[in-house]
Amino acid sequence: MANPLPLQARAAVLESFSQPLRSHSFPLPTAPEPGAALVKTEMAGICGTDVHLWRGELPIRLPIILGHETVGTLVSLGEGLKSDWSGQPLAVGDRITWTSTTSCGRCYYCAVKHQPTRCPQRRAYGIGYPCNVPPHFLGGYAEYHYLQPGANLFKLPETLATESVIGAGCALITAIHGVERTGIEWQDTVVVQGTGPVGIAAIAVAKSSGAGRVIAIGGPDHRLVMARTFGADEVISIERTPEPTDRILAVKQLTGGWGADAVLECVGHPSAVVEGMEMCRDGGKYLVLGHYCDAGPISFNPHIITRKQLQVFGSWSSEPRHLQAAIAFLERHSTRFPFASMVTHRFSLAEANEALQTTASLQSAKSVIVPDSGLLKPSL
Amino acid sequence: MANPLPLQARAAVLESFSQPLRSHSFPLPTAPEPGAALVKTEMAGICGTDVHLWRGELPIRLPIILGHETVGTLVSLGEGLKSDWSGQPLAVGDRITWTSTTSCGRCYYCAVKHQPTRCPQRRAYGIGYPCNVPPHFLGGYAEYHYLQPGANLFKLPETLATESVIGAGCALITAIHGVERTGIEWQDTVVVQGTGPVGIAAIAVAKSSGAGRVIAIGGPDHRLVMARTFGADEVISIERTPEPTDRILAVKQLTGGWGADAVLECVGHPSAVVEGMEMCRDGGKYLVLGHYCDAGPISFNPHIITRKQLQVFGSWSSEPRHLQAAIAFLERHSTRFPFASMVTHRFSLAEANEALQTTASLQSAKSVIVPDSGLLKPSL
Amino acid sequence: MANPLPLQARAAVLESFSQPLRSHSFPLPTAPEPGAALVKTEMAGICGTDVHLWRGELPIRLPIILGHETVGTLVSLGEGLKSDWSGQPLAVGDRITWTSTTSCGRCYYCAVKHQPTRCPQRRAYGIGYPCNVPPHFLGGYAEYHYLQPGANLFKLPETLATESVIGAGCALITAIHGVERTGIEWQDTVVVQGTGPVGIAAIAVAKSSGAGRVIAIGGPDHRLVMARTFGADEVISIERTPEPTDRILAVKQLTGGWGADAVLECVGHPSAVVEGMEMCRDGGKYLVLGHYCDAGPISFNPHIITRKQLQVFGSWSSEPRHLQAAIAFLERHSTRFPFASMVTHRFSLAEANEALQTTASLQSAKSVIVPDSGLLKPSL
Amino acid sequence: MANPLPLQARAAVLESFSQPLRSHSFPLPTAPEPGAALVKTEMAGICGTDVHLWRGELPIRLPIILGHETVGTLVSLGEGLKSDWSGQPLAVGDRITWTSTTSCGRCYYCAVKHQPTRCPQRRAYGIGYPCNVPPHFLGGYAEYHYLQPGANLFKLPETLATESVIGAGCALITAIHGVERTGIEWQDTVVVQGTGPVGIAAIAVAKSSGAGRVIAIGGPDHRLVMARTFGADEVISIERTPEPTDRILAVKQLTGGWGADAVLECVGHPSAVVEGMEMCRDGGKYLVLGHYCDAGPISFNPHIITRKQLQVFGSWSSEPRHLQAAIAFLERHSTRFPFASMVTHRFSLAEANEALQTTASLQSAKSVIVPDSGLLKPSL
Repeated sequence: MANPLPLQARAAVLESFSQPLRSHSFPLPTAPEPGAALVKTEMAGICGTDVHLWRGELPIRLPIILGHETVGTLVSLGEGLKSDWSGQPLAVGDRITWTSTTSCGRCYYCAVKHQPTRCPQRRAYGIGYPCNVPPHFLGGYAEYHYLQPGANLFKLPETLATESVIGAGCALITAIHGVERTGIEWQDTVVVQGTGPVGIAAIAVAKSSGAGRVIAIGGPDHRLVMARTFGADEVISIERTPEPTDRILAVKQLTGGWGADAVLECVGHPSAVVEGMEMCRDGGKYLVLGHYCDAGPISFNPHIITRKQLQVFGSWSSEPRHLQAAIAFLERHSTRFPFASMVTHRFSLAEANEALQTTASLQSAKSVIVPDSGLLKPSL
Repeated sequence: MANPLPLQARAAVLESFSQPLRSHSFPLPTAPEPGAALVKTEMAGICGTDVHLWRGELPIRLPIILGHETVGTLVSLGEGLKSDWSGQPLAVGDRITWTSTTSCGRCYYCAVKHQPTRCPQRRAYGIGYPCNVPPHFLGGYAEYHYLQPGANLFKLPETLATESVIGAGCALITAIHGVERTGIEWQDTVVVQGTGPVGIAAIAVAKSSGAGRVIAIGGPDHRLVMARTFGADEVISIERTPEPTDRILAVKQLTGGWGADAVLECVGHPSAVVEGMEMCRDGGKYLVLGHYCDAGPISFNPHIITRKQLQVFGSWSSEPRHLQAAIAFLERHSTRFPFASMVTHRFSLAEANEALQTTASLQSAKSVIVPDSGLLKPSL
Repeated sequence: MANPLPLQARAAVLESFSQPLRSHSFPLPTAPEPGAALVKTEMAGICGTDVHLWRGELPIRLPIILGHETVGTLVSLGEGLKSDWSGQPLAVGDRITWTSTTSCGRCYYCAVKHQPTRCPQRRAYGIGYPCNVPPHFLGGYAEYHYLQPGANLFKLPETLATESVIGAGCALITAIHGVERTGIEWQDTVVVQGTGPVGIAAIAVAKSSGAGRVIAIGGPDHRLVMARTFGADEVISIERTPEPTDRILAVKQLTGGWGADAVLECVGHPSAVVEGMEMCRDGGKYLVLGHYCDAGPISFNPHIITRKQLQVFGSWSSEPRHLQAAIAFLERHSTRFPFASMVTHRFSLAEANEALQTTASLQSAKSVIVPDSGLLKPSL
Repeated sequence: MANPLPLQARAAVLESFSQPLRSHSFPLPTAPEPGAALVKTEMAGICGTDVHLWRGELPIRLPIILGHETVGTLVSLGEGLKSDWSGQPLAVGDRITWTSTTSCGRCYYCAVKHQPTRCPQRRAYGIGYPCNVPPHFLGGYAEYHYLQPGANLFKLPETLATESVIGAGCALITAIHGVERTGIEWQDTVVVQGTGPVGIAAIAVAKSSGAGRVIAIGGPDHRLVMARTFGADEVISIERTPEPTDRILAVKQLTGGWGADAVLECVGHPSAVVEGMEMCRDGGKYLVLGHYCDAGPISFNPHIITRKQLQVFGSWSSEPRHLQAAIAFLERHSTRFPFASMVTHRFSLAEANEALQTTASLQSAKSVIVPDSGLLKPSL
């Protein structure tokens, strides 16, 4: 890096819920502490969760810099930081991404029960850190991003486009973890409820995990087209088949009357769970993946779990190894599963509010912020 | 068998729901068809399900002979029936028990998906066969029992008391199947919700499967004493701790604040499911075992499954191999797990109504019918 | 079938080991017994095992009709045979295939331990039945094939070419079972030792089961080309890398020095096992799939299993559900995994010896016999 | 600790292979570095591995203080060390034990593949650290033991005797890990080959994991008595049944002719592996647990793995969670599985050579060193 670092850098800051983000300058950390790193942000994804955060639907402290799906270039490395999570050597100039959270590695959930996603110490970049104290830059909507000691960094292979990583976003690693917990068997028939980012990713992961046939349920139509692109063999439109009983019937008809081997819920409405269990064959599997937020209760009869002897799985967030696998998958299958094409809308850092609104209005497949205007290409 | 078979034999028949059983004589099958067998009933258990059936709470056709937990002596064997399910040779005079249902072995659930308990062909002795047509004797509350071709017979070892088999009843095999599907890990902390027959059996199976500590929740106190006898290390009384939130707190306090590794629901009330999932640690397992009957819906928030990344299992009935394992277990552990002591009330066939009422009123641990009055011992 | 059945039909019969097969006529069964069926053979595959059988390397009784990979058309159905193994209705004229063996469904291995491939009752068409007694036609190298009661029949979908089924042959179902027992995890690196029919099938199954990268080891070069066609990302030639230590080194270099997550042995030489375990990463999986025949002992140090804490799996033959999954897979993926292209050499029934020699000399990918010369197309 | 720490303390040092240990004084670390701890040794177990180390059969650097099974009392804690591995608070005066090794937690085996026992960074106290450099005290045969930062400490419950922990030693945690990898199913029949410390522990773990019947193979007779004490239902004496084929026959006769569901090798001779696989039923499991040392190759035919479709597992050392489970198990089951009774011979630190010789000559169940002569009780 021939250019000296600026003393200050800009970020789009959420100061009040449901109010426009405001541009602020903060002092850049002069030198990363041991094990830490400073990164120049290349691209930051806007996740649907960011919209929930912006609206104040989740308990967070303000002010913050949003953004937990980020790719950047290493600007400086703290003492002792020599390799990424996979063991590859790291150097200034490397393009990297990272997990948004870091588990402690020593607690009951990390060490004893191997459930590191439930580590009580986890806080997420772009969600859990106020930005009014140093090192300030702990979210993606900014010119720079600080990575604390212990962060899980991943050097990106040259052949992997930044758009692939951000287009996949946290939806892909969420889906990888969920499908892993569920366990797809070879040639299984799998239903995916929902064709949002997690649903699309779940289709790709299920299909590449050995599913023989994937039935996607969602909408609107352009999302069903995308579902087919990412591997759905059949699609059921919630617009043209608005009644849950009709959708259940449709799945039964596609499965010889039995139901699917596995049903993956990627919707987030509790009614989807009631509907989806009816779509399982007896002895089948059901994944509750979309309920990251608390969407409230529903009338539910647990008799179905006994009678159909179901297996029901939950999955929360993801582990670093899922991001590692995601990177390998994206690099290997950029044609078969074109996650780069998900990046449909690009914005400068100054346009962060527009980026957020485009996601909120479901106009985009994926909106991104490209802080360095020299890297900004026109929206597709 | 020196004595010739009688031409007729007696049974206690359910003709009208909620009305007293009536004693009837039916002609005994002169000779079993190929693969079938005729058995002289030694002891028939009264299951809680029988009370539901008697009240008309499950869809069955009348008239029927109740009784699906039975031990008897082989009186005659149809052509080709030479060995029991385990391959042991069979002869007239052998004491046997059998699975109450038989799966077809060739259907989608039997052959393709290995879920034989969900075979659509299954009908249960004592539940699914009207008794007004030959061979009439297809339930346990009778002097004789006919076993159709394909029935799964098990010769009982001499050292295994009939009381052990009937005292364990269908509760034990139900629990074995459920715990198998759940998968207890060595030294796990396990909560069992419910101290009825299935709960008591689940305690024994969990404990003998490697559970390090079992916490039983139930009542009244004599059932908690029994829970301790069968392996519970801690008990929580639903009488003294009537509030679900307090019981959840009690479990948390017994588990370092985390919750249990596995929680086994053996209650049958939907509210137990909502309560029980709160008792699981994150990443823990939950078994919905008690919902054999449809007890209606409950307000349920599926967010808990995602957030705690639970694994939830259902289990329906049991397979022949579970009965085989149960027999071996009962024989090996008659002291450590004294299922024979569960048989607290004995009745003659003529007293079948009293037997049923004793079970309905929860006075007995296990009521049984001993049709041959020569075998009848005084109630304990 | 407008044409009446002939009274006699021809078969190629193995009378003496290592001697030419001789053409014989046998009386056709006038009517199948209940549950049985008569099929007009459309195509019979020549398996490498047939060459071993012909040479007398396995203990079988002569005379026999070889051929355990067969597709044919239903000519007549015995009483009660109304549907195939999957439950689809069957009618005269349907094109079908079947499992070469049938398990009893009731023995210790079938019922208790769920290892039906180890059922002591199994005998294979084309291997286990002498042809000098009725119904004679119990192998594929013949104009007709008799299917005994209990045989596992599968109606073929119209869109699935007979060449796909025979090109895949018993290699595919063997590989499906083996990979299932091993358990490939998503994005695993998998080594396949051997590029014969089982190796090629294992590549396809591993790749479609979620393997991120498949490294095939074999030869000669045209087999390595085929390995790539069926999904191998990397190939190692045993001709150009003849030393096991060099091949182990090559695998290590392709896997960051660690070794592969899973190694699938499809060779049949004991030395491959010793070599292959060295190719596993610590904690990795090893499948011994190629040792269907006893190829003798090898010097082996079990210390490697403890030190690398390996998981080693064996797999024998396959179950009906594997053939069902294979049919679905072949129909879905005829382009991605072109098993039909494996059928490189076609012969009439009169040319059965040439067919066998072509397989013995490894000239063909797959040789087949087409008994009805009207269906015979020129070799490719 | 009222008494000030001495400036120097004594240890029994291995300077030359196969030569007597020599008593040396080293300076005690004045203050533990951050995260480290100093412990006063209460009891150190003599493991069979120590004999191998003493003889120079494993590649280690001298001089060293042997001893990797140790209980002691916390004398001082480095900055930041506030709780044990389980999260319990630690204070001077607490009685603790610890894992002999520490994995790095971040490497390919620790983080990506969840095989921390194969972490390349692991070095074991009592095996991997020369004692001629500070902090010197990194083995059990000494008055004090230094625990480096990152060591996995476990506070012992008051009701758990030190003798239980040392009597179980590393054999128990080795067995726990091995049985976990193998997976015992409820009521399985399990064969344990070997009745040394690992074999005895494997019997206890298998039995408490749900094994229905355990058959132990070993000797001499006093070890078979011990095998029965720890849960073996049947024993086969290698003295009275010296021929492997006879032992295989004996196992077959005890298992209805089929063989055992699982066979656990705890012998360390390669011939045991060949013998043991023959003792498995088809589809059974085999654990190679005893081959911690390289005992050389054996003539082995891999055909058995395919034909019997075995599952073979290796297991190396253990993880901290296994020690945690072991402590809970020992506390809960001190009567049923009396590991404390294994401590048959006690020696002062000055008698370290006698202690080692007693183990080498197989005279003791477990020899221990009690450095503080005030704690030394007479040998049993």
